[in-house]
Amino acid sequence: MHAIALRRGARAPEVIETPRPEPDTDEVLVRTLRVGVDGTDHEVIAGHHGGFPAGDDHLVLGHEAVGVVEDPNGTAFKQGDIVVPTVRRPLPDGPTEYFERGEPDMSPPEDVIERGITGGHGFMSEYFTSSTEFLLPIPDELAEWGFLVEPISIAEKAIELARASRSAFDWQPESALVLGNGSLGLLTTAMLTESFDRVYCLGRRDRPDPTIDIIEELGATYVDSRETPVSEIPGVYEPMDFIFEATGYPKHAFESIEALAPNGVAALLGVPDEWTFEVDGGALHRELVMHNKALVGSVNSGYRHFEAAIETLSGLPEWLLDDLVTGIFDSSNVEEAFANDETTIKAAVKFYDNEER
Amino acid sequence: MHAIALRRGARAPEVIETPRPEPDTDEVLVRTLRVGVDGTDHEVIAGHHGGFPAGDDHLVLGHEAVGVVEDPNGTAFKQGDIVVPTVRRPLPDGPTEYFERGEPDMSPPEDVIERGITGGHGFMSEYFTSSTEFLLPIPDELAEWGFLVEPISIAEKAIELARASRSAFDWQPESALVLGNGSLGLLTTAMLTESFDRVYCLGRRDRPDPTIDIIEELGATYVDSRETPVSEIPGVYEPMDFIFEATGYPKHAFESIEALAPNGVAALLGVPDEWTFEVDGGALHRELVMHNKALVGSVNSGYRHFEAAIETLSGLPEWLLDDLVTGIFDSSNVEEAFANDETTIKAAVKFYDNEER
Repeated sequence: MHAIALRRGARAPEVIETPRPEPDTDEVLVRTLRVGVDGTDHEVIAGHHGGFPAGDDHLVLGHEAVGVVEDPNGTAFKQGDIVVPTVRRPLPDGPTEYFERGEPDMSPPEDVIERGITGGHGFMSEYFTSSTEFLLPIPDELAEWGFLVEPISIAEKAIELARASRSAFDWQPESALVLGNGSLGLLTTAMLTESFDRVYCLGRRDRPDPTIDIIEELGATYVDSRETPVSEIPGVYEPMDFIFEATGYPKHAFESIEALAPNGVAALLGVPDEWTFEVDGGALHRELVMHNKALVGSVNSGYRHFEAAIETLSGLPEWLLDDLVTGIFDSSNVEEAFANDETTIKAAVKFYDNEER
Repeated sequence: MHAIALRRGARAPEVIETPRPEPDTDEVLVRTLRVGVDGTDHEVIAGHHGGFPAGDDHLVLGHEAVGVVEDPNGTAFKQGDIVVPTVRRPLPDGPTEYFERGEPDMSPPEDVIERGITGGHGFMSEYFTSSTEFLLPIPDELAEWGFLVEPISIAEKAIELARASRSAFDWQPESALVLGNGSLGLLTTAMLTESFDRVYCLGRRDRPDPTIDIIEELGATYVDSRETPVSEIPGVYEPMDFIFEATGYPKHAFESIEALAPNGVAALLGVPDEWTFEVDGGALHRELVMHNKALVGSVNSGYRHFEAAIETLSGLPEWLLDDLVTGIFDSSNVEEAFANDETTIKAAVKFYDNEER
C-alpha cells in the first residue's frame, strides 16, 4: 500500500510503498478515508518536534484520521463502521498507568508514542490498524469531516482544563479571545460562540481574507495583532474572561496575563522553541495574584475529549466546514496537501472515498 | 479607646486615641482579644501596598483578628461569643455583586475595602464593629489562637483553587513544596503534611533556626534556596506536584514552572513590585503545555475558607502554635510587636485577655 512519510534527514514528505498492516488480537484493520494536515505535521517535517519509530528510516505522517472498518477481526466493531483513532499509545515496555486511568493525554509525552508524531507511524496510509481501545465510532454522516475530530478534541481538553481551574467559585464568563486564526483557532472560535457572549479571534492578516470572513460569519470579532497587541486588547476591546492560545508565540503566554479580566484563565496550547526575552515578572506575578488569574497548559486529548468533539462536530454548521477545509487532496498529491500558504486554512489527504463502495 | 494606626506620611505605627465605635443595625460590637501582624502589615507600613480610608489622616492597622462579642445589638450573636471577622467590605457606593454571591475574595481588589489594609480601618483597636455577615463564631478554646484563622484561610483558598485546577483529571499528588518559611509558609507546610506524602519548605536561613526546627518537627524537609535554587529542586529532591509560593519573589513564580512535576500546579500568593528580568519564555510556555502544568494566582479568602480554616486550626498541634507564635505583645508595645527580625515568626498584639473576665 502507499503511505505518506517523512524519511530521516528529509525536509519534505513523500509517497512510499509499505506493507499493509495485519491486525493483531483486539486490533481492527481500518481503511483510511481522510487525514488532516496541521501545524504539528509541519513542525515534525521541519524537525522541530517529534521523532522516528525506533529502527525505522521513516515516519508515516498524520494523526488526524477518519477511516472505515475493513476487518473487524473478531472485535465488537463491524465492517463499514466509520471510526476515528486517538493518537497516544504506550511505549513497548513503557509505563501504562495513564492508559489504565483512561487519561493517556495526561502522561508525560516522553513516556508515550504519538502516532504520526513521535515514535510511531501515523495514519497517512491506505490502511492502518488500531487496538479497539483507541478507536471511536462516529456517525456515518460525519465520515467526510471526521478528520476534524482530533483537532476539536484538543480544544475540548483545553477548555475543560480551563473551566475546571475556575470551578471553585462562581465563574460567569462572557468574553473569550482566541489567539490564532489557523484551523484550530477558527474551530475553537466556533465552539466558544456557543457558550460565550462575545468572542474575539486574533490574527495578522489583511482583508479580504477567508479566515476573517469565517470569524465574522461566526459573529465573532477579528482582532489584528499588528494594530492591537495582546496586552492592549483590554483597553481597545475588553478584558477577556477566557483566552485560548493557539499561536505557539511565547510572548502571548505572558501578554495573556494582562489581557485577562479578573478571575480569568488562559489556556496555552502552543509548543514554542526556546526564546529568552524580558518580562516585567513582578507585575505579571502581582497581576496573577491580585486578580485571581490562572494559566493552564494543555497538550493532546483523551477519549472523553474525542467523544465531546464528535458531539461538537455534529453541531458545526456545514458552511463552516466547507469554508474551513480549503483542500482535500489525493494522496498522490503530497506537495499541494502540505502547502502552507495564506489560501490554506485546513487541508486533508484523501485515501479512499467511502461513497465509492 | 486606643488603637494602633499608621498616620499619613509615617513609616511606623503608633498608638492613637480614637472613639469607641457604635454598632449600626445588624452590626455587633466586638472587644478585641488579639490581632496578628503579618507581611501585608509591613508592606502597608512601608507604603508598598494598601491605602488610607477616604478623608482620614490615619489607618488603623490589623486584619487578622479574634475578639469577643461585647454587644450583640439584637443580632443572633450572644455576648461572650468568640468571633473572627473577615477582611473585605463593599465600598460605600461600590458594586456588591461578589458580596451577594458570597465570594468577595473574587472581587477585583480596587472595588472593595480591605479592613486594615486598603480604605477601611482594621481591627487593632480595643473594640471594633462588624456586620454579622462578616463575622464567624469560633470555639471558645480557640480564643487565644483565633488570629491565625485569617492567614490559614488564605492558604485554604489557594489550595482550593489549585486543586480545582486539577479536578478535570485523576490527579494523585504526592509531593508539595512551600516557598517561604514565614508564618504563612509554616502554617501551610503543616496543612500540607496532612494530605501530601512528602512536603518541602524553602527558606534562606542558617541552622540552628526555629523555622527549620518547625519544618523538621512537622516531618517536612527544609530546602535552603542558597544551596538549591527553585529550578534545581527536581534534580536535587524531586519534581513537585504542588507548589505554594509565599515569598513574593517574582522569579519564584517562573522557576516554579520548572520545579513542577507533570500535571502539577503552582499557587501564587505573593504581591511583588514591578521587576523586569529575562526568562526563557519559549521554554516556560512549552513546559506548561507539554506537561499540562498550571499557575493559579490567589488573593484574600472568602467565608467558606474561614470556615475551613477554623476546622484546620482546631487540628493543629499545640506545640506548633506555641513555637510559631513567637510573641504576644501588649498593645502599648508597638515597636516590639512590629519588629521584623529573624527571631520573629509570628507576632500578635493583645488588647484584652478573655480569661480576665
